[in-house]
Formats: sequence, structure tokens, C-alpha cells
Amino acid sequence: MTERKSPVLPALDPASVPEQRGSGYPEPYRSRMGDRAKRRLGDPCGLTKLGVNLVTLGPGGHSALRHWHTLEDEFVYILQGEVVLVTDAGEQVLTAGMCAGYAAGARDAHHMVNRGTVPAIYLEVGNRAEGDNAFYPDDDLMWCEDEGGAYAAHKDGRRY
Amino acid sequence: MTERKSPVLPALDPASVPEQRGSGYPEPYRSRMGDRAKRRLGDPCGLTKLGVNLVTLGPGGHSALRHWHTLEDEFVYILQGEVVLVTDAGEQVLTAGMCAGYAAGARDAHHMVNRGTVPAIYLEVGNRAEGDNAFYPDDDLMWCEDEGGAYAAHKDGRRY
Repeated sequence: MTERKSPVLPALDPASVPEQRGSGYPEPYRSRMGDRAKRRLGDPCGLTKLGVNLVTLGPGGHSALRHWHTLEDEFVYILQGEVVLVTDAGEQVLTAGMCAGYAAGARDAHHMVNRGTVPAIYLEVGNRAEGDNAFYPDDDLMWCEDEGGAYAAHKDGRRY
Repeated sequence: MTERKSPVLPALDPASVPEQRGSGYPEPYRSRMGDRAKRRLGDPCGLTKLGVNLVTLGPGGHSALRHWHTLEDEFVYILQGEVVLVTDAGEQVLTAGMCAGYAAGARDAHHMVNRGTVPAIYLEVGNRAEGDNAFYPDDDLMWCEDEGGAYAAHKDGRRY
């Protein structure tokens, strides 16, 4: 009989992974993310080709600035609660059990916002691609690369 | 106010995606998978760098033969029910909310089996890597490549 206890790698219980808050965006964008906590699930399993986060988005929280990636596919699956997905086509409500996939290079910027009064929980997954950049049509931000690596810039090219 | 209706791409309701049964394994392995139905969620969203399946594993069903991949990370998240994860280290029960990550090139073969009496549901995600192969330590099978593409072979190299 298989013993029932806390999982060990390559399995894990997300509750055992510390929550991380904050964002890599410069201000004023960082603060705009609001109540957003992520547990990194792929890293403790040793994954390097996939990034996987379990995200709790509190009321008012934003998944990200509205953006698209040049080289990375993204996929989200709503586990609990509901969020509003915003894309170029407008807004739609996603409830638990729904999902969305954002293809690399599709210039349809997306993000999710919790406009409700209770937390939403979702999984977000992406492949990790060297040289990926992200663009933000609504904001004075782009994610660029020079020979030293990636950096945040204004749309006119000046670094933050 | 955001209207509430069936999601449209890049979002979708998995219930709108047809279930697929069957496996690419040769017999006698194909039949061994048992009651396993997958809904492909990444493809309808246009994803090419990620594969995403929502899998319903009935009692007695197997996620796969026990295997490992050379170039692809895999991640699974249990949504409902429970499965037994089998790796080189032995067996452990994974219940809803638990996850596992299998790093590309880690020679720790894995699969999940539903030994219970009710269906289990999980998400499986992998990056898609050209030239990926899979190996099956418990079975007379390997997934190889020649200049014509990938094929299933016996461990001595003969094709199925």
C-alpha cells in the first residue's frame, strides 16, 4: 500500500513554497500590481525550460501590465475565483476552470485584473526563451536587451 | 461593466474542447493506459512552444508509461481526485492541489496511476523541443529519431 504523507521531489505541495510579492517593473508600474503573491513551483522541481507560478490575486490586483512576449508562450488556468481578462478585443470574465493561452509573437497584449471582492487563484506557465522581450502598449515601458542583458526602458529608449 | 458569457480566444472553456482518447504507443503499451481522456488546451490558443493537456484519468488509468524526456520539462498539477506518482524513489500519493515537475534530462522516470475508484483530473504542461526523445526503463520501448523523424523502437533498436 502506498503511504500517504507530504510529497517529496519531484512532487511538492505548493503550501510548502514561500510566497513572493513585488514586481520587477519600475515605479509607477510596480505599485499598480496591487495584492499579488506568487509561489514559484517549477524552480524547486529543477525546471529550467518552463516557468510555473501559482498566483493569488487579491481584490484590485493585476497579473501584470498589459503586455505580449516575443518568444515565450504563456498559459493560465483559473483555479479559484474570477478575473477579468483584458486583450485588444476588450474584456471578458474568466471563472474557475477556464483558461487562456497567449502565443509568442502574437501582438495581442493581455493581462488579468481582479475586480471582485475575494481573491482569485490561478496557475501561470511559460516556456523560457533566451532573448525574449516584452512590450506594453498601454504604458511607457518596454523590456529591451543590450549586450549586458535585459533592462526596462521608456518607449523612447531611455533606461529607467 | 464586463459582460459575462462564454470565453473567446485567447481564452477558452475546456468543456468546449473535444476529448481525445488513445495513445501513440505501440501495443501492448497502448492498451495499458486504460481510461484516459485528454483535452488539448494549448493548441486551440495557437501555442507552439508549450503543450498543455487537461487529463481525466479514470480508475486504473495510467498517465503514460514510466518515462523521462531528454529535452522537455514536464509539469503536472492535480485538480481533482488523487493519483499515485511512481518514480525511481518509489510511490507517493498526490491529491488535489499538489504538483510535480520533471526536469528535462533528469533520468528519473515517472508516471501517475489512478488506483482509486473515482476519476482524477490534472493539468500536464511541457515545453516543445525539437529532437526530444523519451526513454522507458520498465518497458521494451524507446522513442528514437532518424532522418525521417521520430519512431517507436524496441530497446535493441528494431522498430515497432
